[in-house]
Amino acid sequence: MADDNNLPAVIIHRLSDFQHPLPWPKHTIFNPIESSDPLYPVHRASARVLIVIPPSPLKAEHLDQYPSVECVVGTSAGVDHIDLAECRARNIRVTGAGSAFAEDGADYAIGLLLDVLRRVSAAHRFVRAGLWPVKDHFPLGNKLGEKRVGIVGLGNIGTLVAKRLEPFGCTIAYTSRNKKPQIPYAYYPTVLDLATNSDSLIICCALSNKTRHIINRDVLTALGKKGVIVNIGRGALVDEKELVKFLVEGELGGAGLDVFENEPEVPKELYMLDNVVLSPHRAVATPESFNNVMEVVIANITAFFLNKPLLSEIDLNDWC
Amino acid sequence: MADDNNLPAVIIHRLSDFQHPLPWPKHTIFNPIESSDPLYPVHRASARVLIVIPPSPLKAEHLDQYPSVECVVGTSAGVDHIDLAECRARNIRVTGAGSAFAEDGADYAIGLLLDVLRRVSAAHRFVRAGLWPVKDHFPLGNKLGEKRVGIVGLGNIGTLVAKRLEPFGCTIAYTSRNKKPQIPYAYYPTVLDLATNSDSLIICCALSNKTRHIINRDVLTALGKKGVIVNIGRGALVDEKELVKFLVEGELGGAGLDVFENEPEVPKELYMLDNVVLSPHRAVATPESFNNVMEVVIANITAFFLNKPLLSEIDLNDWC
Repeated sequence: MADDNNLPAVIIHRLSDFQHPLPWPKHTIFNPIESSDPLYPVHRASARVLIVIPPSPLKAEHLDQYPSVECVVGTSAGVDHIDLAECRARNIRVTGAGSAFAEDGADYAIGLLLDVLRRVSAAHRFVRAGLWPVKDHFPLGNKLGEKRVGIVGLGNIGTLVAKRLEPFGCTIAYTSRNKKPQIPYAYYPTVLDLATNSDSLIICCALSNKTRHIINRDVLTALGKKGVIVNIGRGALVDEKELVKFLVEGELGGAGLDVFENEPEVPKELYMLDNVVLSPHRAVATPESFNNVMEVVIANITAFFLNKPLLSEIDLNDWC
Repeated sequence: MADDNNLPAVIIHRLSDFQHPLPWPKHTIFNPIESSDPLYPVHRASARVLIVIPPSPLKAEHLDQYPSVECVVGTSAGVDHIDLAECRARNIRVTGAGSAFAEDGADYAIGLLLDVLRRVSAAHRFVRAGLWPVKDHFPLGNKLGEKRVGIVGLGNIGTLVAKRLEPFGCTIAYTSRNKKPQIPYAYYPTVLDLATNSDSLIICCALSNKTRHIINRDVLTALGKKGVIVNIGRGALVDEKELVKFLVEGELGGAGLDVFENEPEVPKELYMLDNVVLSPHRAVATPESFNNVMEVVIANITAFFLNKPLLSEIDLNDWC
């Protein structure tokens, strides 16, 4: 047990559905305490650090169960499952996964974009259905180069998406809360402006009350019939009902979707569309990334107990 | 007709199965003559330039039908359908598509690599089969970054594949006939050496008698159980029978295959493998690329008639 050596206790909060063991490295002094531990109720009252396993929500009623918590350590790129306003009100600090998942997220965004534009999954279905020898005319996809790609949110992931897009010969633009200094890409103050000037949009911003449904009917209309949406952020960044309508009616060129508004529910209307690639929220998930995130989690916990600056603290004033 | 104004005739050679019209630009003085033209037999005897539509073979018996041809203009990235030795023996020059298809080919190679490693097509099948709500544990893919990617053939396409891989954080190496000057990637003199030092191989070299089955049993063994093969070159670069055996027996990590030894036949054993992405020879095919290649074709024809250097002439001494 973690407090055998009088080490401070670190406790885990998770939905009972999500019992995958944390890939916790062997050689670390902290030993996070699961609810199966007989001493869990004791630690629940005294633990100062709480690790939250997504998508378990952490709201006021949950926080009430951990009265001594001073620091909530997130293990995911997005922290929309954590009630940040409530944490701020209770003077609880919050950390996220920082850039631990960023490379995988960016890789997957490029994979989805290439898949939709060049019809990779559709090609695979065509061949597997035995249609190639029969029906030679598999419709061509479109070239990525020379396209205008708009990045919604130029944070940890968005920046790496842009870097990866550069050698493909795309014209890159972005929108974010503020224009970033020394960034060579065109900045548009609104998603609507960005969509008007883009052939594809890659959505990789955080979900908050300010960004919910930022991809709405107007944005989809601006993107147009040949426009492609890739979403590796959160499902609720997009008005999913509108998105489905646009795709079903052929008013949008295609979509690569790793996230959905009511996961794991995926709108069935999308299942049979050849220009849509669906994925079960796996953009940032590889064994390599999980190792990265465990390093970040441990570094944050260590920093907290040593009164050092946290590695990937979330600025709650920015969010709430 | 092309010779209405006494312009030199340009004639087309193609299999009767491949009757897609050439996307020939309107404003060009050359008007290629199809076999449906009543004057085709006349032009066949006198035409000095022959456009070949792949995969129509152009062998000695075909060349006999075009006794005046001095220049064969290819419209594809690979020219393995043209008997280059026979062309050399008859003093016929040959041009290829040069770099017209290179960007699309490189894009598609990255798309296939990401798809296999990150399991994009497999994810799509998982969601479409309605398994996500039921069976949450979709197996994770692997990160592209930090992997060693070996490029077989650092020509027009291979060079662009490498450029695209750089921001993903891969270690890039290559093999080719000769070490290229001023290239920052590690060079291995043989495919076997390259495979021994790579996690994934991307095959984008030309098919010739020297490269047939360069990906053989030894190379696959060297690549190993987690190794991934992407082939956008030609099917016969790989010993397909061995490749299928390795994949079926789990002795190779996965494959993204746009080309096959006996197209359009695809080994049925590959249909159901979740770690294999199949594609009907579409890596270099987009409307944008077809426009590019038409420009190259016209530039070569123009150069030929003006006695200027051909734009993308194939060095037959290098090939035969």
